[in-house]
Amino acid sequence: MSAHFEDTALEDIDELMRRSMKAFEAYARQPLSVRGRLMRAIASELDACGDALIHTAMRETNLPEARLRGERGRTIFQLNSYADACERGDWLEVRIDRADPAKTPPKPDIRKMLVPIGPVLVYGASNFPFAYSTAGGDTACALAAGCSVVVKAHPAHPETSETVAEAIRKAIAACGLPEDLFLHVHATAIETGKALVTHPCTKAVGFTGSHLAGRTIFDWAAARPEPIPVFAEMGSVNPVFLLPAKLEAEAETIARMYAGSITLGVGQFCTNPGIIFGPEGPGLDRFLQTIAEAFSEMPGQQMLHRGIAEGYTARKARALSQTGVTPVASGRTSGDLLAGVPAIATVDARSFLENPTLHQEVFGPFSLVVRCRDVHEMTEACRSMEGQLTTTLMGTEDELAHHPELLSAAASRCGRIILNGVPTGVEVCLSMQHGGPYPACTDSRFTSVGADGIKRFARPQAYQNWPDGLLPEALKDGNPLVLLRTVDDRSTREAVIR
Amino acid sequence: MSAHFEDTALEDIDELMRRSMKAFEAYARQPLSVRGRLMRAIASELDACGDALIHTAMRETNLPEARLRGERGRTIFQLNSYADACERGDWLEVRIDRADPAKTPPKPDIRKMLVPIGPVLVYGASNFPFAYSTAGGDTACALAAGCSVVVKAHPAHPETSETVAEAIRKAIAACGLPEDLFLHVHATAIETGKALVTHPCTKAVGFTGSHLAGRTIFDWAAARPEPIPVFAEMGSVNPVFLLPAKLEAEAETIARMYAGSITLGVGQFCTNPGIIFGPEGPGLDRFLQTIAEAFSEMPGQQMLHRGIAEGYTARKARALSQTGVTPVASGRTSGDLLAGVPAIATVDARSFLENPTLHQEVFGPFSLVVRCRDVHEMTEACRSMEGQLTTTLMGTEDELAHHPELLSAAASRCGRIILNGVPTGVEVCLSMQHGGPYPACTDSRFTSVGADGIKRFARPQAYQNWPDGLLPEALKDGNPLVLLRTVDDRSTREAVIR
Repeated sequence: MSAHFEDTALEDIDELMRRSMKAFEAYARQPLSVRGRLMRAIASELDACGDALIHTAMRETNLPEARLRGERGRTIFQLNSYADACERGDWLEVRIDRADPAKTPPKPDIRKMLVPIGPVLVYGASNFPFAYSTAGGDTACALAAGCSVVVKAHPAHPETSETVAEAIRKAIAACGLPEDLFLHVHATAIETGKALVTHPCTKAVGFTGSHLAGRTIFDWAAARPEPIPVFAEMGSVNPVFLLPAKLEAEAETIARMYAGSITLGVGQFCTNPGIIFGPEGPGLDRFLQTIAEAFSEMPGQQMLHRGIAEGYTARKARALSQTGVTPVASGRTSGDLLAGVPAIATVDARSFLENPTLHQEVFGPFSLVVRCRDVHEMTEACRSMEGQLTTTLMGTEDELAHHPELLSAAASRCGRIILNGVPTGVEVCLSMQHGGPYPACTDSRFTSVGADGIKRFARPQAYQNWPDGLLPEALKDGNPLVLLRTVDDRSTREAVIR
Repeated sequence: MSAHFEDTALEDIDELMRRSMKAFEAYARQPLSVRGRLMRAIASELDACGDALIHTAMRETNLPEARLRGERGRTIFQLNSYADACERGDWLEVRIDRADPAKTPPKPDIRKMLVPIGPVLVYGASNFPFAYSTAGGDTACALAAGCSVVVKAHPAHPETSETVAEAIRKAIAACGLPEDLFLHVHATAIETGKALVTHPCTKAVGFTGSHLAGRTIFDWAAARPEPIPVFAEMGSVNPVFLLPAKLEAEAETIARMYAGSITLGVGQFCTNPGIIFGPEGPGLDRFLQTIAEAFSEMPGQQMLHRGIAEGYTARKARALSQTGVTPVASGRTSGDLLAGVPAIATVDARSFLENPTLHQEVFGPFSLVVRCRDVHEMTEACRSMEGQLTTTLMGTEDELAHHPELLSAAASRCGRIILNGVPTGVEVCLSMQHGGPYPACTDSRFTSVGADGIKRFARPQAYQNWPDGLLPEALKDGNPLVLLRTVDDRSTREAVIR
């Protein structure tokens, strides 16, 4: 289906990473305005790729046109909004403490800001050919931070990736920046990935994908002579807790909302709701019946590629074969080997709690509904879950207030906790947390969505006793960039008087 | 010399960490004001330990009384100033994006803040029995973040650690907080340390000490089924670059300043200047001669313990035996096996560049002066250095402005870059960066000194679509804590109107 692109040879990785380091050294010195301009230029070039890029991506990913147009729009919005954030400079975390010669010993003038960490390796994600691939969130964050970028194209959409890479190259040239600032690698061999992660010039990695691949990359990075940070977002089951009063009152509405969320994008989102906990009773029965009705009309849609489709079918079958699991509904099957047929099943809480297999993600349009005796058992089940990107609670304000232990158990296990909504749909904004305790991601202290993601690729540097003339712009007395800075523990945009 | 304390049995670690987790769950819900109150109470109790604590520490560490009184003062200051920072709440990084129902799809209300990561394991440091041990910076940061703390006492000062632990327990009791919020472990067996690091309830580690121990802990943590962040500060050689004009003009003044910095605390600081680069010539000769004169009058002072003293003597001898190395001066020797006798030696830049042994830290009052042909060779030498806590440049403003490549090479290798000063003396303030690229520490994105160190032990959590009544205080519409918050990308202390 795809054009063929030559893999980068293993022996070329060393030179490639050295070129990236050299470009980094030049780019790191560029002011925030130049970084912002580059990101906006990439956004424009991406837009200028027009219909041809959408058609290439459709062919390579089986995703529908509307979704891909929407995703490109999101990617353009991301680049532009992170460019704004980059230039606003709040993320630089400027702290200035003025000298105090009267102190014993005398206190020197110290000023701190975030500086770029070095060349960043970005792995393209299969399920977001634009938003989490070549010019996606990780690339945008790295460029905003002042880092050079090496993208390893996802092998499932190499031509899409190549086209986007060409758009980035054009933008770099138009901005007069070093062409090696962005390098693009095709590689199917695992050794090539390992060579990229373990090269001494690589200083950080961004990854979105499976737990197996994410953990492998993390382990390579941690075992280096100089370990480097890896932000690997590895998905989760995104548990949902249906509280009794809410469920009783709105079973059908919630069910329709969740039938949509479970099957959105053929379930190929890391925030897909994979496990739903509800209290036994007529409310849960109505919820299941409504989902069953919705699913029965749904045909299986084509998944991203054959490996994903086969993995879905196998994992779904494995879940359905576990003790206590009862199938409730399935979408319409067809002969298409690429189709992901939606399905839902139930299991009692005891069987769920005793069986770790049922806690695992089934990537695709499948959800397991866990029948609990009461909210107490739901809380117990929640406490058995590992780290998640999201947890969701469906409840009336009154019953939520009466179950603080469930709220607290749900919150402590996730990066984002949602009330009365669905976990799919990740808004690109500063308040977004896309990450969470392991295994949702490898470092819960960072996010891959929202401009705070820039900080994954930056480190603080303090300048002690520097004259104004030699300080970086962001730290100068006069505050020429008009940044919000913390001066002697107080936030201000005012100039510093020495 | 020390009282004997029973090691915690390996089989008791599991229960101990579970207790810590339980205390964490209760403490994490406490408001910032309670955390601040606890930290101030610990500071008071530490002060109330009076002379007895100082005498115990003198006996266990061989450090002089004035230094220990100063260090306790610093520790009290740290606790109080991080308590202020904790309550000020800027570190919570509150971001609020209001709902926009008109958007397609509708944008939900999302609010994000930092929440505590979980029980934190703190390793006491041998060289700072107060400031980086039991109630030191890591403990203060963890408590400010809302975490419970388990301290592994440094075996070189167990009684000091036990006394400080008792002060913390008293403060916890006085504040009516769970007693397991702080737990204190004596352990000499490596297996006990490993059991603490690898226990599932341990969620982060703070460490200050040797590269060998720090890397071992990092490797244990990275290999866990659920990897956890380790901030290990492992010291460095803190290179100093003497530029020609400055050196020529002030050789004697700089030499006296550095004779003091090299021997401060018997060289037992992680910011000790271990390698000094200077241009061949009369200025460097005068610099060396002045240091030699200063050293010749200095007796060796007792180091922290026998292992440190023996390690210093052996590493110094190894450095002195390398090709091209010439001893310049040494302090007065004595028969005391604990004494760290100051010494300085020179080597030519080529020999230095070819010999990795000479790049290694000699922990104690030793510096190697690398004779360079010119600033170009100094820059080349700088580029050969690994990650550092600090680098220092001594130069006139004019010559600094003329060597941007040296400034940039020096900055890119360290957490803190100092002009015309000494690296020893780490100010406790928000602008301080105490950390740096590996091997100075395991994650250059964080600091262990200054209130930004709190963020090592906190992770962002987003609340989507929550009613005001159920939101944490910091995120409520009315901003009852009067925090500086970023609302719709704008910093403000104003209330949020939904």
